[in-house]
Amino acid sequence: MLRLASATPPAWVDAVAAQVDLLLLDHAHCEKKAASTAMNLMFRHGDQPGLVRALTALAREELDHLAEMLDVLEARGLAFARLEPSPYAARLLTAVRRGEPHRLVDTLLCCALIEARSCERMRLLSLHLPDPDLRALYADLLASEARHFHTYVDLTKRLHPGVDVDDRLAELARHEARILEGPVEARMHGTFPADPS
Amino acid sequence: MLRLASATPPAWVDAVAAQVDLLLLDHAHCEKKAASTAMNLMFRHGDQPGLVRALTALAREELDHLAEMLDVLEARGLAFARLEPSPYAARLLTAVRRGEPHRLVDTLLCCALIEARSCERMRLLSLHLPDPDLRALYADLLASEARHFHTYVDLTKRLHPGVDVDDRLAELARHEARILEGPVEARMHGTFPADPS
Repeated sequence: MLRLASATPPAWVDAVAAQVDLLLLDHAHCEKKAASTAMNLMFRHGDQPGLVRALTALAREELDHLAEMLDVLEARGLAFARLEPSPYAARLLTAVRRGEPHRLVDTLLCCALIEARSCERMRLLSLHLPDPDLRALYADLLASEARHFHTYVDLTKRLHPGVDVDDRLAELARHEARILEGPVEARMHGTFPADPS
Repeated sequence: MLRLASATPPAWVDAVAAQVDLLLLDHAHCEKKAASTAMNLMFRHGDQPGLVRALTALAREELDHLAEMLDVLEARGLAFARLEPSPYAARLLTAVRRGEPHRLVDTLLCCALIEARSCERMRLLSLHLPDPDLRALYADLLASEARHFHTYVDLTKRLHPGVDVDDRLAELARHEARILEGPVEARMHGTFPADPS
């Protein structure tokens, strides 16, 4: 349903569970970044019908989640410290083609894949983190990540009915899977070893 | 209460009432800009205690208002078209001093004054626009503008207890009043002739 081209292995969950404070801080930054990415798209493409409305709702939800994550950090005595962004999003966006409509199509689909990967991983966290409160937190959050995936894909299809969005999404999903290959990184969008099969 | 150094005259209300579609479009853009300004501050000054939390709540509210304004535009058959920003905010921000903490203090206080001016004008709109639905809309919105003014001022005082924030706010308010002097412009933050008194 989420159209990802690879599955995150249990080793990733073990790695983030061992550094859960880093995971929570990273996740808070991801929510902030997701809100600002949506807002930047609203500025750059404000003339695209329906885009501002769809992304206003999405950005509001990302800010709700940021507020929730700030509460989680505070409850655990953690500061919302600066954190070097993981290279995932920048690497993913290298696949964005130049020139419209390609640029907007690819950007929206990359945003969709980030939401999809977040959803896939939050599901793992909701099942396997040792802390029951954090399992419940991620069980609550993963549904909206899935919704945001669909928001981005549906918006792309509505704006560009002539483009084969599903084909392009599959191509970008293979790119997304490739850039995630590497040693296990304990970050929300950290890498993991390729499946040898 | 809002610490403004000038009062908007009835002539401004008459001007915007005569071009109400432009007012509504301008206002929608102002809400979008207010949300993105808050978010940019969250990125630039994310390490300032309490800043991210305060501005997350504020940005969520600005996005709520943007969504509301998109509904208003749609109900009137108006597109959320591009609009050249009025020069008000850029002119206001010329007063921001270099170097911290001055830069952050002045930026937050300029944001406070934009909210204060919006509140002052929304009050006029809530009293004097001919359309009762729009009067009600602005009566609803003006309270949150006043709240946002206080959010910015309180945040400045909390972050910089050693700075005479009230004095600096009064100075910046005089600057804000000066840059609003000019022929009547039918924009949310448009100019108006100086009071000859």
